[in-house]
Order: sequence, then C-alpha cells, then structure tokens
Amino acid sequence: MSEVVKLLGAWPSPFVIRARIALNIKSVEYEFIEETFGKRSELLLKSNPVNKQIPVLIHGDKSIPESMLIVQYIDEAWSSAGPPILPSLPFDRAIARFWPTYIDDKWFPALKSIVLGLDTEPTEEKLKKVREGLALLEDAFNKISKGKDFFGGDQIGYIDIGFGSFLAWLKLVEETEGVNLVDETTTPSLAKWVPKFCEHDAVKDVLPPIEKLIGFSKLLRSNVDLVINPK
Amino acid sequence: MSEVVKLLGAWPSPFVIRARIALNIKSVEYEFIEETFGKRSELLLKSNPVNKQIPVLIHGDKSIPESMLIVQYIDEAWSSAGPPILPSLPFDRAIARFWPTYIDDKWFPALKSIVLGLDTEPTEEKLKKVREGLALLEDAFNKISKGKDFFGGDQIGYIDIGFGSFLAWLKLVEETEGVNLVDETTTPSLAKWVPKFCEHDAVKDVLPPIEKLIGFSKLLRSNVDLVINPK
Repeated sequence: MSEVVKLLGAWPSPFVIRARIALNIKSVEYEFIEETFGKRSELLLKSNPVNKQIPVLIHGDKSIPESMLIVQYIDEAWSSAGPPILPSLPFDRAIARFWPTYIDDKWFPALKSIVLGLDTEPTEEKLKKVREGLALLEDAFNKISKGKDFFGGDQIGYIDIGFGSFLAWLKLVEETEGVNLVDETTTPSLAKWVPKFCEHDAVKDVLPPIEKLIGFSKLLRSNVDLVINPK
Repeated sequence: MSEVVKLLGAWPSPFVIRARIALNIKSVEYEFIEETFGKRSELLLKSNPVNKQIPVLIHGDKSIPESMLIVQYIDEAWSSAGPPILPSLPFDRAIARFWPTYIDDKWFPALKSIVLGLDTEPTEEKLKKVREGLALLEDAFNKISKGKDFFGGDQIGYIDIGFGSFLAWLKLVEETEGVNLVDETTTPSLAKWVPKFCEHDAVKDVLPPIEKLIGFSKLLRSNVDLVINPK
C-alpha cells in the first residue's frame, strides 16, 4: 500500500471533505489536486468517465469515485492504519451506511436549494425540511452514539463523516438566513457534537472557513446553471 | 443468527428482488410479507420510519432498509452460509458498490419513466439513455468478469444482483416498445449473461413472469401520482 495517493477535489465540496477526513483518520499522505470551478480536467474525465464528478481517489493505477464509497475504500485499504471508520457488527454497519444515503438523497437537496437560491418553493418550506432532517439525525445520534461523543462512539465514524462534511454549509445557511438550525433547545445532542467534530484533528484543517465559503456561495448563485448542469 | 427473518416487499419491485436473491444465495429461510400497492402497512411504517419504503429486512428485533444495504447486510451477517456476494479486495469492493449506485441514480430513472409513460421527454430520448447505460454496463462486464459468467466471476455477485434485478422490467420495455435493448450485436456480453443470470437457482423463482408484470405496469400507469408521491 505504498502507491502514490491523489485526491481530485475542490475545497468547498462537502463530498470532497469526506474523503479528506477519512484520509486524515488513517494518516494517509496524499496530493490534493483541485479542479477549477465550472471546468472538468482531463484527469477527472479520464479517472471518472462515468459520472465525471469529484471527488475521485487515485491510488496507484486505480481510481475510486463517489464520496462515501471512497470513505469505505479508505477504511478497507488502510484497515490497520488507524481506528476503523465503519463499526464491526453487520447491523451497526448497515445503519451507519444508511444515514449518509438519507442525508444525500433526502436532506441535502433542501439545504443545497437554499444555498443556490432556487425558487422551487419558499425558503421557509426548505428550512422546515432541513429542520425535520436534523430532528431525525438528533434522534439517530441519541440511539447510535450510546452516550459517547460521536456517532462512531469514542471515534469519528462513517456517519460523523457523512453528516459532518455539511457543517460548514449548514453554518453558512444559519448566517445568511439569520436562523438557528442546530442549537441546544431543538437538537441538544447535535449541538454538543458539532464543536467536538469540528475541532477533531482529522477535521479542523479541512472544513472551510465560513467567510471564504460565503464568497464561494456567491459564485455558485451567479452560476446556478453550471452547478445544475455542469459541462 | 437463528432469529426469525422477514422481508417486507412486493413481488414486482426490482429493489425487493435484490434482497430475495441475496437471501437465496445464502440459503436463508424467510417469511415474505407483501405490501398492498398504494398503501403502507403499520409494520412498514414502524420498521422503516425514515423513508417508509420497501424492501425492509427484519432480522430478529432489527430492521434494515435500502435494497443494496440489505444485500451487504446479508453478505456480512451470513458470511459463512454461502458464496460471498461482495469481492474480497478493497478496490474490487469499491467498484462493485459503484455500479448499483450508477444504475439506481442515473440509469433506472429513464427506464422507469418509460414504464410509467411520463411525458418528460420523447420515448426515443429515454431509450437512448437506457442504451447508453447498457453500453457502459457491457464495458464494465468485460472488465470486471474477466471472461467468466458473471460480474461476480463464477458466482453471482453484488453487481449481478444490483443490475439483474431490473431484467424483468427491461424485458417488459422491450416488449411494450417493440425494441431490442440487450442483444448480441450491441451488447454481446450482456446478451450471454442475461439467460445465465435468469436461470440461476437463486434467481429463477423471484424474477416475475413477463405477462404478470405487463398487467402490473398498467396498474402503475393508471396510478402514476401514487407511484411518484406515495401516501
């Protein structure tokens, strides 16, 4: 496992952040190759010809697409290099795998729609959906963490990575919309989890600063077509 | 692992078929509990409260949602009960996990749109998308199967299950639209794979007969709202 490791990505992408956190947990050294917004490099098209999206992990002569599949790959390829990312029991593994699919398919679209300023429905409706998802995640945290710091117990695990990768974007929406989404009243367990996750050694240097993200979100809003239908 | 196994499903669902094939590969006895079309049972709402969809695997007091997560759970929970469903090497596992995500997110929507008769775009455009996906899957088969019978090599594996579960629906579209989609000219490897997959012991009794499926597709077409926005 001494082959060169490269990650094709972009600093604002929550999906790319997932791969970076997993690499950090396993102490894997890697070259971070950033794509230019609105373009696709030859390397990206060559290494992920089917869906042409970041992130792509390049390990030696192998290319792995899809953020949570990359996280699982890292967990399996460097199984002895750091704490496990997925739990060990089959049922716990299934539940861990479930939540990021929920987050990506059902929860994130509402948050993304707010960030992009799409006029699909009133912002209040979107915020309601974001809050409903957070209530489910609060409940899931209480069941899964068993009183410990993280979804993964004493260590950051698969759900922590899948959800935590969106925290900078969640904070951005809190700031730009002037609302509280994660707080001690409505989501007390997540409110305790957020700073512990953000300050974790594997995370703190890859979550983007909020000011920088606000600037980037303006670029996104003025190029919505490119975000929805990338070239 | 002697707890009672139940599967909440419905015979026409490709997603339910995936779970049934995996249970058959591992020779797991299970009770098949069928949901009524257009309704959601109390048991479904209780065992899958987040996304309220079939299939749900109930194993003792545990409930597992999401078809491909159920397949992985079955592979892990009954690891010694039959041939492995996922390959053993991390990279092969990542690629195996990738293709069903491609199939579900990018390929199936066009096929589903034809079955439901949605007027989002002309049928010719949808068929073009279905064919483009099949060309990618033909290419993937040639790379992954290494000259053997299945994506999984000598045995049915994770991609076989993820893709093969749609074969009855693909056949239905071929019949109703009067077109060839998998054939010896355009997708020769898939054309050889289809009968081997359909006649496999773990598969042959769970793929629905085409006549029965044509009848069901008429029920779907006359209740499109219920399919798109289930109650």
